[in-house]
Amino acid sequence: MSSILRDRPASTPAMLAVFGDTALLRAAMLFEAVLAEAQMAEGLIPLEAAEAIVAACAELPDVEDLAEAAAHAGTLAIPLVQILRQRVAARHGDAVAALVHKGATSQDLADTALMLQAKAGAALVRDEATRLAEALAVLAEAHAATPMLSRTLLQAALPITFGLKVAGWLQGVDEALARFDAEAKNALRLQFGGATGSLAGLDGKALAVAERLAARLDLALPATPWHAQRGAVAGLGSALAILIGAVGKIARDLSLLAQIEVAEAFEPRVPGRGGSSAMAHKRNPTGCQVALSAALRAPHLAATLLSALPQEHERGLGGWQVEGPVLTDLFQLAHGALAALAPVVEGLEVNTDRMAANLAAAGVGTDTGESETLVGRALAHYRRDR
Amino acid sequence: MSSILRDRPASTPAMLAVFGDTALLRAAMLFEAVLAEAQMAEGLIPLEAAEAIVAACAELPDVEDLAEAAAHAGTLAIPLVQILRQRVAARHGDAVAALVHKGATSQDLADTALMLQAKAGAALVRDEATRLAEALAVLAEAHAATPMLSRTLLQAALPITFGLKVAGWLQGVDEALARFDAEAKNALRLQFGGATGSLAGLDGKALAVAERLAARLDLALPATPWHAQRGAVAGLGSALAILIGAVGKIARDLSLLAQIEVAEAFEPRVPGRGGSSAMAHKRNPTGCQVALSAALRAPHLAATLLSALPQEHERGLGGWQVEGPVLTDLFQLAHGALAALAPVVEGLEVNTDRMAANLAAAGVGTDTGESETLVGRALAHYRRDR
Amino acid sequence: MSSILRDRPASTPAMLAVFGDTALLRAAMLFEAVLAEAQMAEGLIPLEAAEAIVAACAELPDVEDLAEAAAHAGTLAIPLVQILRQRVAARHGDAVAALVHKGATSQDLADTALMLQAKAGAALVRDEATRLAEALAVLAEAHAATPMLSRTLLQAALPITFGLKVAGWLQGVDEALARFDAEAKNALRLQFGGATGSLAGLDGKALAVAERLAARLDLALPATPWHAQRGAVAGLGSALAILIGAVGKIARDLSLLAQIEVAEAFEPRVPGRGGSSAMAHKRNPTGCQVALSAALRAPHLAATLLSALPQEHERGLGGWQVEGPVLTDLFQLAHGALAALAPVVEGLEVNTDRMAANLAAAGVGTDTGESETLVGRALAHYRRDR
Amino acid sequence: MSSILRDRPASTPAMLAVFGDTALLRAAMLFEAVLAEAQMAEGLIPLEAAEAIVAACAELPDVEDLAEAAAHAGTLAIPLVQILRQRVAARHGDAVAALVHKGATSQDLADTALMLQAKAGAALVRDEATRLAEALAVLAEAHAATPMLSRTLLQAALPITFGLKVAGWLQGVDEALARFDAEAKNALRLQFGGATGSLAGLDGKALAVAERLAARLDLALPATPWHAQRGAVAGLGSALAILIGAVGKIARDLSLLAQIEVAEAFEPRVPGRGGSSAMAHKRNPTGCQVALSAALRAPHLAATLLSALPQEHERGLGGWQVEGPVLTDLFQLAHGALAALAPVVEGLEVNTDRMAANLAAAGVGTDTGESETLVGRALAHYRRDR
Repeated sequence: MSSILRDRPASTPAMLAVFGDTALLRAAMLFEAVLAEAQMAEGLIPLEAAEAIVAACAELPDVEDLAEAAAHAGTLAIPLVQILRQRVAARHGDAVAALVHKGATSQDLADTALMLQAKAGAALVRDEATRLAEALAVLAEAHAATPMLSRTLLQAALPITFGLKVAGWLQGVDEALARFDAEAKNALRLQFGGATGSLAGLDGKALAVAERLAARLDLALPATPWHAQRGAVAGLGSALAILIGAVGKIARDLSLLAQIEVAEAFEPRVPGRGGSSAMAHKRNPTGCQVALSAALRAPHLAATLLSALPQEHERGLGGWQVEGPVLTDLFQLAHGALAALAPVVEGLEVNTDRMAANLAAAGVGTDTGESETLVGRALAHYRRDR
Repeated sequence: MSSILRDRPASTPAMLAVFGDTALLRAAMLFEAVLAEAQMAEGLIPLEAAEAIVAACAELPDVEDLAEAAAHAGTLAIPLVQILRQRVAARHGDAVAALVHKGATSQDLADTALMLQAKAGAALVRDEATRLAEALAVLAEAHAATPMLSRTLLQAALPITFGLKVAGWLQGVDEALARFDAEAKNALRLQFGGATGSLAGLDGKALAVAERLAARLDLALPATPWHAQRGAVAGLGSALAILIGAVGKIARDLSLLAQIEVAEAFEPRVPGRGGSSAMAHKRNPTGCQVALSAALRAPHLAATLLSALPQEHERGLGGWQVEGPVLTDLFQLAHGALAALAPVVEGLEVNTDRMAANLAAAGVGTDTGESETLVGRALAHYRRDR
Repeated sequence: MSSILRDRPASTPAMLAVFGDTALLRAAMLFEAVLAEAQMAEGLIPLEAAEAIVAACAELPDVEDLAEAAAHAGTLAIPLVQILRQRVAARHGDAVAALVHKGATSQDLADTALMLQAKAGAALVRDEATRLAEALAVLAEAHAATPMLSRTLLQAALPITFGLKVAGWLQGVDEALARFDAEAKNALRLQFGGATGSLAGLDGKALAVAERLAARLDLALPATPWHAQRGAVAGLGSALAILIGAVGKIARDLSLLAQIEVAEAFEPRVPGRGGSSAMAHKRNPTGCQVALSAALRAPHLAATLLSALPQEHERGLGGWQVEGPVLTDLFQLAHGALAALAPVVEGLEVNTDRMAANLAAAGVGTDTGESETLVGRALAHYRRDR
Repeated sequence: MSSILRDRPASTPAMLAVFGDTALLRAAMLFEAVLAEAQMAEGLIPLEAAEAIVAACAELPDVEDLAEAAAHAGTLAIPLVQILRQRVAARHGDAVAALVHKGATSQDLADTALMLQAKAGAALVRDEATRLAEALAVLAEAHAATPMLSRTLLQAALPITFGLKVAGWLQGVDEALARFDAEAKNALRLQFGGATGSLAGLDGKALAVAERLAARLDLALPATPWHAQRGAVAGLGSALAILIGAVGKIARDLSLLAQIEVAEAFEPRVPGRGGSSAMAHKRNPTGCQVALSAALRAPHLAATLLSALPQEHERGLGGWQVEGPVLTDLFQLAHGALAALAPVVEGLEVNTDRMAANLAAAGVGTDTGESETLVGRALAHYRRDR
């Protein structure tokens, strides 16, 4: 639905797939399968039941049917568990089927599945951010001593080097990525608390089951279930927005440098990209556009997660349910912005003559101060972080 | 993509279709066809060319291909116009093909198509809001004299009637719908300005063409093109958010009244809805959940449109491009919230005994003041508006 | 407190005064005085009591003391009414003192006082927006035929006239002001509903009292009290944000035109303004800075009002209480932005030679299309609105 | 200005003072004094000059005058440096006076002063959050085994213990405080880059000066100046918003528990607080109100900082300037919310009989699962963090 307006070029096929319905269902099925295995290992359900449930989880249900059923039920878990139980019941009877989803609640399934998707999304973000940071490091080093005019409040200021400008971009991305890594490590956690977070119904072995689940799914295990404590999700969303903002800052500067009156740097030419339906001469900064659009939307998406924090009692009404689509948007915009700007930086056309000419025209001298030293510091700091 | 998390139950199939790719392409093709007709009527292109273009617009291109091409180009217009020109050229030659999209720019196409979708969306919103308002009017009248406890700052206050409470909801929806109507009337406007809004390239007949386009598409014609003046879009978005907020207010109150300790009103039972995967006794307020989720997200979406207002020069970089997906989200959430709550109000289970008991328990007397008179005023005001 | 960071230059002394403590207390005292008069006129309290109350309202209490007491009580009304009752009791006894604030609630006082402040604020906004619009109309007319380069996506596009660019700014401000006027007319309303909006406690004469209050205070009288229906406030806030956005759009363009590489327009020189503590040659666009800062903050403030809409029952807990400070911020930023940019437009230094040179350098011809006609349309539309 | 609406009870006198004008000027003067000392130590200015500058910084200028001058100049630094230079010149001549603010720019002063204020604000936040966390730990332990009804989607769910509910609150605050500490450590950094971040004008000794400044002011020293890289500020703002959200979550739950129909917990009685001007029986949850108001506003304030990230070139126009007032608001709201809720939790009136009765009435059994174990985990986790 609406992929033209919404999905591309704002995001990438890879990230769209990570948060697509198929991936969601796969994560949900994985949760139920692993849950059965863990309960079997703790002696809560028989081996035969665990094998039956795992087998039932192997085949994805029809996405369209399930979407419709989930919309009606108000939650994905109910129709999904129903399908699994039907599958198990058909071959093993109702008693075994009743062991599907045992001791778990809808939100255990939904949150864990979302975190599994987020884990895959985080890997994509990390890769693309690293690619961008590397390209910035190369560019900063190459132009450590290239003089250019700095601008403050959009007015000519004093000489710097282009490398120093790029070093600032690098530092922005580097710090944002470090924050994202820390928040992802914190937020990618198992949800397992049973109906209301009390871990009832599992004979006192629920924590042991939770530990097995966390280990198997490679998710953190928080001290208590977090059904209504959503700070980690908001922290992850804020970190994504800050990373997007760091990319947007680069795009802001590049789009200003690419004005024809400034003409100091241009996006690389890509056949068929950046054209105009009315003006053949146009070469639009399409990569910057994608990044700036993301940087405009992301703060409001992060704020949505923040607004959702004061959720009611043991599971919020309305607040919790917005997190899935909004976190999805943030991951998709982050990857879209990074993937749009990384090749721009890698292939950036830098016009050092024009930099020199603009600097000379400003009549503010040639002293670039300790720009080169600062570039070195930024690169050293970046490499230490890697 | 990701319909389970994003599309349903947050929105409705009808509104998802209005903002779907097919509808977008249909609107885009309609724009190009009507443009050719108008230019023919003004003597700018020959009849044969107009007919060829109209014919080429009759068949929708493949959505997947076009989405991919638009993502690459950075705009929908370029590949779409290219397809149309290829179709025309195949039968009528390149000279005729060159007349496709004559004197128009990408944004003329994109904005007008979006406004055509918004017009269809506005009709859906209006219908469902009217349905909700009618249900509220009926409910307010039925309970004009039903005493209940009012609550301020979530504490017991003094007696009112349930009708007065509902009359407040009605007034909220009624006023929000009036604002939405006014903003829609203002915002549903043609975009036609040529490459940079100067109406160049049409022999001084561009305004005449614009008038024909506006009449044919039933869109308003502003004094000047609005490529970078986006207040009307932001106004429409804010009106949608306020309407969603009015629905969210009802959902907030209903969800509080439905707490088992209060038990004064409940959503109607819908088989298969509102259940819990862990607790068979649960009857969750799913309609309220949809409305409250929308009311949590909408302010941030409206704010995104507000943040996009200071766009650069004659067409913004990044700001303009966010409007399509964000306005789409707002329409979809608005219809989702209205469609979720209208049947709730229509079928609301009101427990007047419990209202009386809670009121008596609070020990704040029985004087409901002029509640009934106020219900009458609200109903009269509402009916005058219709 | 913190006036350097917060109050100036973001706002103006006039608007700061409108929303200052003294103005708030004056509005609150006016409400209580007029309430007593209206109740006297309806025979609800004796003439002597009304005169005593009016007299007690004549002298403002100490602001510091009252701020402290209001902070402790959680509401302004309680300590304020207490002071008035003490004053009345001292000369007329407790029975008369008890008639102060009769039949009203804290929120009646607080909302009405806020709306009285907003009315004064709206007048300031309207005056300054009109001043800006007039300056834009003059500028558009003067440069209706001045050729310049248009820019789309921050890239050179095609020729327009500077008058067309300014006509777009004018249309943005004009439309935003029309919306603001409509929303102000709607939102500037009396609040009078008694403890919980039922108008209890006034012998069936509460509506008559309300009519007198509304007439005397020149505020609209809604069908029912709006203690928990806040769409009108959110509408007013959104309108302010859109107006600020229209001003921000002008500032965005002007700041881009004032880049030394573009050099087509500059803020007028104001002695002591726009300098740099480190660079004597700097001439910073300080007016644009104020407007752009406002345009960055306003969307989030408007969204705060939108987020507050789903308030609980008959008076919200937390939601209602944010409206005062946030609406204040919006009025203050709006006036600050308008007052910063109006003199910039009035005294704008336009470099038509540079416009011509930049246009020629772009090599996109000289056809400005129907720019002049469009300027005429925009001016006619603007003047029809006045 | 406007302290009644804006400053109290939303914040505390202590935090208002930290971000007051006097504290700002004190921080600014400290920066200039320490800068002179550091330059003296590096041999950049003579001892006599350093002593003269330090002496000139000892006396605060008149706040009103300076606010007015800063508003006119568009920056605080210009009039402040002017005053200092006048003071120095009067006794030591113009040559020495010219050494004031040597090698620094307005933003070095403004950012460093803001960070010094933020450091003081962070200490207040940390203290009050720790106080709240301690109170929560005590409460969780005391009620580790107290059965109560859990509620999901505002509907009755299953038994938990009140201690488990409180343990969730504790975990929310604890994790939010850990994030805040990390972000504060990162963000509380020196700004020192000279006019455009190149560290020009200090004979290659600028980094040495920066190191002395950072050590003396106890601020971090980033790899490069961060005039236009604002992720750390946005990270700090997001962390404050998440902390406020964790407090708001507690307030949400408490306000729901305090409904008279639920009646399981109440804010402690404070004479003169929480009353109503119309209803003598009212006992409003004023502490919760303050926290919920903060939680409603904070997301939008944090988002403002996120929106400001893509700043132009070496110093942003509009974006940078919003950070001071917005970060101030966040610190003030955070402290206000914490200080409002800490005593509420410390003195909470818990009605365990009513908890038992409501649980029994729900008919969902009595199995609280592993609630007690989870409380123990949360407490252990919290104490490990301290």
